[in-house]
Amino acid sequence: MIYPKSLEELILYFKKLPGVGEKSAERLALSVVNFSEEDVSGFSKAVVNVRKKLQKCKICASLTDSETCDICSSKYRKENIICVVEDYKSVFMFEKIGKFDGVYHVLEGLISPIDGINPDDINISSLIQRCKKTEDLEIIVALKPTIEGEATTMYITKMLKDHSAKVSRLSYGIPMGAEIDYLDALTLERALSDRQVII
Amino acid sequence: MIYPKSLEELILYFKKLPGVGEKSAERLALSVVNFSEEDVSGFSKAVVNVRKKLQKCKICASLTDSETCDICSSKYRKENIICVVEDYKSVFMFEKIGKFDGVYHVLEGLISPIDGINPDDINISSLIQRCKKTEDLEIIVALKPTIEGEATTMYITKMLKDHSAKVSRLSYGIPMGAEIDYLDALTLERALSDRQVII
Repeated sequence: MIYPKSLEELILYFKKLPGVGEKSAERLALSVVNFSEEDVSGFSKAVVNVRKKLQKCKICASLTDSETCDICSSKYRKENIICVVEDYKSVFMFEKIGKFDGVYHVLEGLISPIDGINPDDINISSLIQRCKKTEDLEIIVALKPTIEGEATTMYITKMLKDHSAKVSRLSYGIPMGAEIDYLDALTLERALSDRQVII
Repeated sequence: MIYPKSLEELILYFKKLPGVGEKSAERLALSVVNFSEEDVSGFSKAVVNVRKKLQKCKICASLTDSETCDICSSKYRKENIICVVEDYKSVFMFEKIGKFDGVYHVLEGLISPIDGINPDDINISSLIQRCKKTEDLEIIVALKPTIEGEATTMYITKMLKDHSAKVSRLSYGIPMGAEIDYLDALTLERALSDRQVII
């Protein structure tokens, strides 16, 4: 063993992190050696706390430190506009834009018959229940444009058919800054069929 | 705040690590959320242990979990061949090659009059003491080829002049795989003056 045991151990844990290989793990672990006493104990506690304190929001199933998340319990968010996302990471992505003033619903997965994931296996029934209780409802389905994403979108749309809700999905098309020459055919096809009227 | 507090805190600590920016810190912290209970407590303890257990070896000043490091206390290492390095990271670099069977001496710095770092400020006197106690001594000075590195090498050489020790330094020259056309002039000059006889 090249490194002292305690250092070797920390390297092993850093290597469990995504995108951290042998070299990076060594560099990260060696940098912790130079952390202040305070930072080390803070870092150590933060790691434990993330597991101990984080829980699913009772309403939207996003990650939170309390029973209901800050978004669901905020009086400034429109409860009747629900953005349906695949996982809690999407919630953070949308919150970063800072343009959405509705609430979220985290499905924790997508319908995928091939993988044996049925509507009952993901967080859809609670979404339908939320919708039933909400008036003047608008649903924005923000799932990825794959077979699973579209199947889930279609299922949700079908379930909400009788709820007089406005249901939309994210637009598909050319990502900002992309060169049209290098786009895949499917994206271009979608960009064409989803074309927006300018004038 | 976009993230729950406990997550935000962990992100802050990850951002203190070298080469970890906002985005990476978020990704790393989010991945810890999915760690097993066991991994989380292990990771947390490893962070603390690195600070608590790691100490300087009494002999060579490298990092170790015990009083003297594995290398200094190994009976398979030649005590009379001392490789002098700038910091403990160099020790790990050499150990990775696995070709050196001597011991090390960590200077913890280099002489630099400009920055006010004198021979007394780094770990040189203990090196001289070690040398005095050792017979049939060979010193390999493995410092970087900068003004500070060369000044330190010269100082050590001067101090050991009366010790009948064999003193060498690492060779300077073209790094393996490099294109000669793109080398800097100084490196090429050194490669020329340090040229090795083939036949």
